[in-house]
Amino acid sequence: MPMIARDADATRARLIRAAADEFAEHGIAGARVDRIAAAAASNKAQIYHYFGSKDGLAAAVFGRFAEESLADDHFDANDLPETAGCIFDQFEDDPRVARIALWMRLESTATAQEVIDADDHKVAEIATAQRAGVVTSALPAEVILGFLLTLAATWSALPNEFADQLDRHDRAARRRYVVEAARRLVTP
Amino acid sequence: MPMIARDADATRARLIRAAADEFAEHGIAGARVDRIAAAAASNKAQIYHYFGSKDGLAAAVFGRFAEESLADDHFDANDLPETAGCIFDQFEDDPRVARIALWMRLESTATAQEVIDADDHKVAEIATAQRAGVVTSALPAEVILGFLLTLAATWSALPNEFADQLDRHDRAARRRYVVEAARRLVTP
Repeated sequence: MPMIARDADATRARLIRAAADEFAEHGIAGARVDRIAAAAASNKAQIYHYFGSKDGLAAAVFGRFAEESLADDHFDANDLPETAGCIFDQFEDDPRVARIALWMRLESTATAQEVIDADDHKVAEIATAQRAGVVTSALPAEVILGFLLTLAATWSALPNEFADQLDRHDRAARRRYVVEAARRLVTP
Repeated sequence: MPMIARDADATRARLIRAAADEFAEHGIAGARVDRIAAAAASNKAQIYHYFGSKDGLAAAVFGRFAEESLADDHFDANDLPETAGCIFDQFEDDPRVARIALWMRLESTATAQEVIDADDHKVAEIATAQRAGVVTSALPAEVILGFLLTLAATWSALPNEFADQLDRHDRAARRRYVVEAARRLVTP
């Protein structure tokens, strides 16, 4: 690869990393392009050159998160409790994921198509597990997926009134509670 | 009450209503005092006179929400599934409540003391129901309260990838799913 292309890739990667931090902290509307440029040792002109606009940069960040989260996906419709535990781990390992998901909700940002497709696939697998009698049929498959994600994000998404739970229950204990809640939710 | 005091009360009430809309839409950091003043047919000087600052106005709004939510509270530790349904109703009746709770989380705003006290009281009641064998002891009482609130807020707090569930399942159906999930969560 010629040097100039490699430099461009490195700059793009630095900008995406800096933008992920900025968006997690301030959301899209509150994010400032000049802060991102400074944190990436770049400048605004480069951001507009590579990504077109702040929204273009946001789309690149969400695309990267979606890619990483799908690559790190341990989804198993026949073991939804442990799946919920793995989702919990993703939120704990990178708190920016849950924060950016909340900002997207508040700011009505569209979800990446690859995430929507992956969700559709998971719902179909849950429905298969329901027909096989492994998962309860008392709730629709897509509602089960929604509840599992919500439970796994409890301490990332809850208001601060529950922050003291983080002191009382360490990460291992909270993971056990998520797995136990998921087990109760899906057992036939 | 003298006319001038009644006018002051009416102005304060209008400002709090307008501020609740503005905060739900834009969060605290993104809220603009001049938009709130305009929506309340008031002016910035009156806001600073009555509330001291934008943060003072935010505290008044959160206090009002906390007051209303506590007044409208149908908490029953011996019937947590129906309690979860009632929390769901509160989120559906006024979507600003869940949005403002999310903003508070993202912007690290402290929760009102009366809400914290009310939560402590609920946790104590859940613990009593656990000792009586009405509620499972597989999860700590405060974690159960957290999971119930999270489940009830599923469609308010989830990323937009789940927005299509709102088309597939009407409010009555979604309430039934929340009640069923809560029943599964808490049954001994």
